[in-house]
Amino acid sequence: MRWSQTFIPTMKEIPSDAEVPSHQLMLRAGLIRQLMAGAYTYLPLGVRALKKAEAIVREEMDAAGALEILMPALQPIDLFERTGRKEAFGNVLINFSVRRGDRNVHMALGPTHEEVVTDLMSRHLSSHRQMPLTVYQIQTKFRNEERPRFGILRTSEFLMKDAYSFHSSIESLNEVYQKMYRAYCRIFARCGLDYIPVEAESGPIGGDASHEFMIPASNGEDQIVFCKKTNYAANLERAETGRKPPEITTSPDAKPLTKLHTPDVGSIESLCKFLKCKPEKTIKTLVYLADGKPVAVLLRGDHEANEGKIRRALAAATLELADPDTIAQVTGAPVGFAGPVGIKCPVYADHDVPLVVNSIVGANEGDHHLVNVNVARDYQLTTTFDLRNAAAGDPSPRGEGTLELVHGIEVGHVFKLGTKYSVSMGALYDDETENRQPIIMGCYGIGVNRILAGLAETKHDEQGLIWPLSIAPYEVILSVIGANEPETFAAAEKMYAELRSQGVDVLFDDRDLRPGVKFKDADLIGIPLRVNFGGKGLKEGIVELKWRNAAESERVPLTDAVKAVVDQIAAKRKAELAALPN
Amino acid sequence: MRWSQTFIPTMKEIPSDAEVPSHQLMLRAGLIRQLMAGAYTYLPLGVRALKKAEAIVREEMDAAGALEILMPALQPIDLFERTGRKEAFGNVLINFSVRRGDRNVHMALGPTHEEVVTDLMSRHLSSHRQMPLTVYQIQTKFRNEERPRFGILRTSEFLMKDAYSFHSSIESLNEVYQKMYRAYCRIFARCGLDYIPVEAESGPIGGDASHEFMIPASNGEDQIVFCKKTNYAANLERAETGRKPPEITTSPDAKPLTKLHTPDVGSIESLCKFLKCKPEKTIKTLVYLADGKPVAVLLRGDHEANEGKIRRALAAATLELADPDTIAQVTGAPVGFAGPVGIKCPVYADHDVPLVVNSIVGANEGDHHLVNVNVARDYQLTTTFDLRNAAAGDPSPRGEGTLELVHGIEVGHVFKLGTKYSVSMGALYDDETENRQPIIMGCYGIGVNRILAGLAETKHDEQGLIWPLSIAPYEVILSVIGANEPETFAAAEKMYAELRSQGVDVLFDDRDLRPGVKFKDADLIGIPLRVNFGGKGLKEGIVELKWRNAAESERVPLTDAVKAVVDQIAAKRKAELAALPN
Repeated sequence: MRWSQTFIPTMKEIPSDAEVPSHQLMLRAGLIRQLMAGAYTYLPLGVRALKKAEAIVREEMDAAGALEILMPALQPIDLFERTGRKEAFGNVLINFSVRRGDRNVHMALGPTHEEVVTDLMSRHLSSHRQMPLTVYQIQTKFRNEERPRFGILRTSEFLMKDAYSFHSSIESLNEVYQKMYRAYCRIFARCGLDYIPVEAESGPIGGDASHEFMIPASNGEDQIVFCKKTNYAANLERAETGRKPPEITTSPDAKPLTKLHTPDVGSIESLCKFLKCKPEKTIKTLVYLADGKPVAVLLRGDHEANEGKIRRALAAATLELADPDTIAQVTGAPVGFAGPVGIKCPVYADHDVPLVVNSIVGANEGDHHLVNVNVARDYQLTTTFDLRNAAAGDPSPRGEGTLELVHGIEVGHVFKLGTKYSVSMGALYDDETENRQPIIMGCYGIGVNRILAGLAETKHDEQGLIWPLSIAPYEVILSVIGANEPETFAAAEKMYAELRSQGVDVLFDDRDLRPGVKFKDADLIGIPLRVNFGGKGLKEGIVELKWRNAAESERVPLTDAVKAVVDQIAAKRKAELAALPN
Repeated sequence: MRWSQTFIPTMKEIPSDAEVPSHQLMLRAGLIRQLMAGAYTYLPLGVRALKKAEAIVREEMDAAGALEILMPALQPIDLFERTGRKEAFGNVLINFSVRRGDRNVHMALGPTHEEVVTDLMSRHLSSHRQMPLTVYQIQTKFRNEERPRFGILRTSEFLMKDAYSFHSSIESLNEVYQKMYRAYCRIFARCGLDYIPVEAESGPIGGDASHEFMIPASNGEDQIVFCKKTNYAANLERAETGRKPPEITTSPDAKPLTKLHTPDVGSIESLCKFLKCKPEKTIKTLVYLADGKPVAVLLRGDHEANEGKIRRALAAATLELADPDTIAQVTGAPVGFAGPVGIKCPVYADHDVPLVVNSIVGANEGDHHLVNVNVARDYQLTTTFDLRNAAAGDPSPRGEGTLELVHGIEVGHVFKLGTKYSVSMGALYDDETENRQPIIMGCYGIGVNRILAGLAETKHDEQGLIWPLSIAPYEVILSVIGANEPETFAAAEKMYAELRSQGVDVLFDDRDLRPGVKFKDADLIGIPLRVNFGGKGLKEGIVELKWRNAAESERVPLTDAVKAVVDQIAAKRKAELAALPN
């Protein structure tokens, strides 16, 4: 493609409304333009990169035995009512009525397709002999984002690869889950992303086991708990720690218990301000209703409760923060003054709680706190639990190494759904003994646009984007210097034709502009290999090859230039393939 | 792909709710399944055919110099308000509000993208030097069809290729229009469709010149006027005829004018019933308001008014049927009794009107008609016009040949839009003299799904679909007969592997079923070339090659079979390419 004949509106200035590098660079490099909040047009360079990502996803899905289908975006609302997801999605589910004759038809725009695919398969899968079966599509999803932002990282409309698998046994689900997991590793590696598979809770989509694929990035909206030494990685909801129950014993440094008047001091923050102490000296007491019964949960003041862990520790089906009446009942005090000493409900403490010596806690009395509170003297515990989010510095659950917290961009997600959808939608099959059973399902998503955003966010420098060969809109940019000199231009034309005939994906910058402008544009749009053609070098029979991510350029005789380009690209591709996970 | 590992739910019975062959066959062959009225899921075979059609469209668009982009389906409603298309589309435009924080955001789902692309280009094209520029996308469109029907022929959601071109002169528009026209001919020819480019009015989308690409099909919803001899083709709104103004003279057979009492006979139908005459003996008088002034239009009773032609003949900007008050004013009678004799407004007659001898017309008096009305004696005309839809038997406007009417499926449309959108959206550029001018535009659409529907509707027989090689979900089906015989199966496996290694797009029917069932399925899904592998033939070292559209199969030695398949497919492809328009 000739630059003069395509449409690459690069920008020098950083757009004022773009907050993060990926958004700024994708705008500046002329890949995208905003239509409205959360909706972007992909310009020619953007489409080329997107199609390459899509092709990689398709190849790996096909290789993993998934069958491509295409489901509608428009879906009848009653499917979402049957699974309860109309309520679960709430305002995120775009839904509306259209008039047809004298009827109103209520429909939704698919945020994902569990309902549609389960409905489809419930009509076709009737026997265990027809499974396993995995289908996928690469299709546009719609979600009303309250706050669309960060360019194409969070939009109301996006291209998603969503796959769904159907099974008559957990073993079969586990097998396909592993296949998909491996395919995801290959996809993200082929796309040149530094990804981390992260253990995850399943969230509102339901089910019991899942992994998120995360790209560590400082502007990522998700938090990942990560151990470099053991490669343990999990999201914040899910992450375990290697902490153990400590010995529950009163410290020899215990000071005498004292009650203080702390008027209107009902939060850890105001308490620390009032007493000029650090939060880690305090213990916070959260009163929950676990299956409707009040319990107190003790955490060190600087720690965050993890309700998933609390629910599991208590073996509770439901868990919610208690109302003020319940709190008053078990503490005898208004909200903000609960403490372990004398509280009238079962107490569950996090591992770190008994380690706080001479702690500060609520006094179970309005406007009062206790100081120098010590375990086994002032309050009793028989054991402790992991009840909080992991924090930087915690030991890894894998026995060695230390956890750190990093931000990440979620680009993929694999889920063991189980029978959530097949039960609610009546998707049943006959097992070996002719008994009707709900189909066991898995689902597997990739945000195709986010592959680009993740790359732009993590692969760039001051000059612009740095695309990997596999996703770059073009692999090579041939920049002719002195496009107004007929001989130079004719020689460049010849090289352009030769590169194309060798199957090189090349952008020919044929514009009659100064070299500086052209090189800046080339660096901004991030084409992996630039060929500097013309000027003094050409007079000496030399062209320069400059890899975007290399510091120096290489001088190559003009006569060898096409071969050098072809060989270097082939070598790079080969090295990338060799590095792929199996 | 192995049949046993894909998902091809063929059906023996004709689905009761499917009215037309394409719908029936695409369901029966397991290409599509309905989710709800107007929304279909494409199953693996359907997706494969759709992707092949999409790839052909993309290749030809790229070759014609159009640049691929991708615009959002979600669009802000105010764009449609600015161009007046919110009102013009009416109930067809799916639009709704979503809540974001405390704001409601009103958006539409794009039925096409003139507004979005004009808005985009208005921000980027500022000089004549940046044009011509043509962009396209292959993207999902949404339209609320009052009566979605005929399977994927008329749906609320469909894949469309829409291209838009931008120009600083009409000459440039004409040039790109011709390029697109040629690309369309190549696309539909490559897809194996018998298409007719048809002159068309531009309709509500606006503009001044257009062609529709039609597939003649008895179940098509459009009507095409076609002349086999001259290849003249136009849609019904547009079609001219070769009729000429006749001599305006009273027939020697004129009988005496008579007034008849025709109580409550206010339509041509009731008049013919009452007088036991044929409609072609009557003349109907339609009273219009042309730019607000009453005019009478005379047509033979069996002909249909063509308001586009009437408007042009009258050089009127607006034309609408007159209200009863106006009719009473110019005729002195209630609606249903207008006639040319003594009417008090200008009269315009179609060419065929003066040829009706002893005609029957309204008497301009309630409950009365005149019979034996003759031109130049009872009413006066100075000339006649073409004011009606073409009818079968009319002379072709190209000077020889006769027009016929056929039904067709519209698969594509090319439009010279002119400045309709650039004017309403302020998309201006600087011309050579630095004056601001509205950008001149063209737009070009193809219904990708309709390519499949058009093929299914026109290329099938009693047994099922007959795909062309270019669109077929697979080019070859290798049907193993006696899949339960290990030796046969192993030999078939070997041929399957060899075909694949030669790049043949092959479906391996590895199911252990009776030959009859397998052959029926193969014919139903319409794979172009079937290899019958096994049985008696194999024992003799023979396999059978059977082209789907051939009567007989060919016996080929097993040792030559792979080569024969590869050669025959290559020969077929070459012949198809040779037949393409330039």
